[in-house]
Amino acid sequence: MAEPRSSSSPARAAVGEVCAWIDAQVSSLRAEDVPLVEAGGRVAAADVAAGFDLPPFDRAAVDGIAVRAEDTVGASPYSPCLLRWVAASDELPVGGAAQLNAGAPLPRGADAVIALHLVGREAGGAAAITEPVAAASGTEPRGCQVATGNTLVAAGRLLRAAELGLLASAGWERVAVVRRPLVRCVIAGAMLETARSPSRAQVYEASGPALRAVVERDGGRIVEATAVARDRASLRDALLRPGADIILVVGGTGPGADDEAAAALAEAGELVIDGVALRHADSAGLGRAGGVPVVLLPGSPAACLLAYEVLAGRAIRRLGGRNGALPFPTRTMTMARKVVSEISMAEVRPVRCATAGSVEPVPPITEIGLMALAGADGFLLIPEGSEGYRQGAAVSVYLYEGYDCAQP
Amino acid sequence: MAEPRSSSSPARAAVGEVCAWIDAQVSSLRAEDVPLVEAGGRVAAADVAAGFDLPPFDRAAVDGIAVRAEDTVGASPYSPCLLRWVAASDELPVGGAAQLNAGAPLPRGADAVIALHLVGREAGGAAAITEPVAAASGTEPRGCQVATGNTLVAAGRLLRAAELGLLASAGWERVAVVRRPLVRCVIAGAMLETARSPSRAQVYEASGPALRAVVERDGGRIVEATAVARDRASLRDALLRPGADIILVVGGTGPGADDEAAAALAEAGELVIDGVALRHADSAGLGRAGGVPVVLLPGSPAACLLAYEVLAGRAIRRLGGRNGALPFPTRTMTMARKVVSEISMAEVRPVRCATAGSVEPVPPITEIGLMALAGADGFLLIPEGSEGYRQGAAVSVYLYEGYDCAQP
Repeated sequence: MAEPRSSSSPARAAVGEVCAWIDAQVSSLRAEDVPLVEAGGRVAAADVAAGFDLPPFDRAAVDGIAVRAEDTVGASPYSPCLLRWVAASDELPVGGAAQLNAGAPLPRGADAVIALHLVGREAGGAAAITEPVAAASGTEPRGCQVATGNTLVAAGRLLRAAELGLLASAGWERVAVVRRPLVRCVIAGAMLETARSPSRAQVYEASGPALRAVVERDGGRIVEATAVARDRASLRDALLRPGADIILVVGGTGPGADDEAAAALAEAGELVIDGVALRHADSAGLGRAGGVPVVLLPGSPAACLLAYEVLAGRAIRRLGGRNGALPFPTRTMTMARKVVSEISMAEVRPVRCATAGSVEPVPPITEIGLMALAGADGFLLIPEGSEGYRQGAAVSVYLYEGYDCAQP
Repeated sequence: MAEPRSSSSPARAAVGEVCAWIDAQVSSLRAEDVPLVEAGGRVAAADVAAGFDLPPFDRAAVDGIAVRAEDTVGASPYSPCLLRWVAASDELPVGGAAQLNAGAPLPRGADAVIALHLVGREAGGAAAITEPVAAASGTEPRGCQVATGNTLVAAGRLLRAAELGLLASAGWERVAVVRRPLVRCVIAGAMLETARSPSRAQVYEASGPALRAVVERDGGRIVEATAVARDRASLRDALLRPGADIILVVGGTGPGADDEAAAALAEAGELVIDGVALRHADSAGLGRAGGVPVVLLPGSPAACLLAYEVLAGRAIRRLGGRNGALPFPTRTMTMARKVVSEISMAEVRPVRCATAGSVEPVPPITEIGLMALAGADGFLLIPEGSEGYRQGAAVSVYLYEGYDCAQP
């Protein structure tokens, strides 16, 4: 019969120290070229400069008629200036008016565009202008958006619709982005044993689908998620297999006799942080093996997810060139009820929206596990020096959907 | 030579009216079953109830030893209670202590779990307990997280990591989600003509990659994006082809002679809204054809994207079962400089972060096009009744990344 291993409580690293270690150890992966249509949500790996002026020629800013501004001098409602309709071509004759769509190049000689609804139509077919126009009005001069050589999109920018549209306008069909971090999940602590009763009482593996969702949200890709035997040698071998940019070990982090994740990491490479002062996830650890960062996550599904959010997600976001900070909008809200937190440990505390602008804690993770996270609208990150917040206190809330809580 | 068509300015619908029309016309698509690992970011189509208690048995909440609480009565540091190590099995004998990992089922007879670091080891191999424990401490009773039949995830909930983990814990391998809206883009107004000079002066198609990024962000999928001839018959035929849940027409919305999108929609089905009081995108329109909603977006890339965000995106989000509201967190911030807006038109005005907590307008879309959106940190949505905001005014800012601006 195995007896418990040493019960000494190791000094746990503060969350801030762990984040600083991650920031020092983990930086952007190298770049890869991808087609623009697949680049949404990726991060620009380098500045992209305009190869030509945008727009590349003087053009109409509105649907209208191209004119020579000097032809309209003196026009008034009582004495309209009459211009002759001509087909749009390379050059606009003196006294002519050529219809253009917005975006079409100005003919030579034309220097203004008058919107269609300001143009009258005379019986004889002439265009009647009732107000003089200034040169350049209704036009976009060549290069007014971006001049050749200027930056279109800066390195590190998350590519959203506007950036992609801009790059396409500037003639790019591909763009250099930071490579997506490849993530291997090694499931060591899953309680997959079949329980004795009731018959359906199997404890299902919860971390796989959950981790996939957060890894993809953070720009990573799970290339392998495999359960391995809980012994030290199996875990060590899994840590030494190449092919990933970061390895997450799930489970095997506790003080139990068969909790070998930390020992396996120490053998495979370097166990730098063994225990984090983060409630529910205090058995988490970090280090390196085979040249890549390794994060040890507790096996309990709620604890695993918390430790992912605060620790592993930061590393994955940084590998992918993103901001390491938690990817949730924050809003200052009021505590509808008090919340108590153990001093000396940081704590992720799920909350739900109460009345507009206020939040209340949901039943704790120790009581309802993942239900606490699944039923929440967001969470507090209570620092280790805080004992919690009184009712009515202003708190900074990380919101899962920033637009739900305050905008019913 | 074509003369301009009627230049009458139609009454434009207010943005609020258009949103109300969308909300009345467009609701969730039907459900489909998907594997849990592919369900991240999807929306639950129905309540999912627990098929059995979670946890399914009384279990250890911590790594520790299972005991009978009554065996520890009277324990103290001076007079520890000594328990006999036994292998974990179906039943814990009186006076026994069985080591369990967190999550493991309690043996019959055991009613408390003592964390390992609180357990001493006597020379004779007994477990020494120095403090009495209460029944149920260190345990999770069967059903404490969710009881059989109770709701795990409610219909309409966006499935994130916690929800997926919870469903997996409860034995679900698939989940019913709202079908992804299939989107057809019909590009009618693209300025794909080769310009005359300079040689590289082609105007590239910008809306394709941009729309793909926002449609995917909103949970939709572009099944077809094709350029069609600008004439009315070609557009009408494109609107009548089946296979999409919503059709976006890009371009052909202006007052020009060959702007036929609105007329084509009127022929193919119903043009309900012809013109929206939204600056830059006032030529947008909405209606129905072939039984699905149709949104007419202006061809200019920046205007197209604005109209998508305010109008089309709402419809796509609602089709996919999501909240129709703009999918950006808002934050109350201060204007670092004044911003002026035309009264009678709502306006999307891109802004960038200035000093912490304040924003300033970027150069307007009329001057720098998509550069205004690509360089922005977020935007104001200025209602049609407002003339803008003075310097120092508190404004609600939609932020592209809620966590960037205030958390450097």
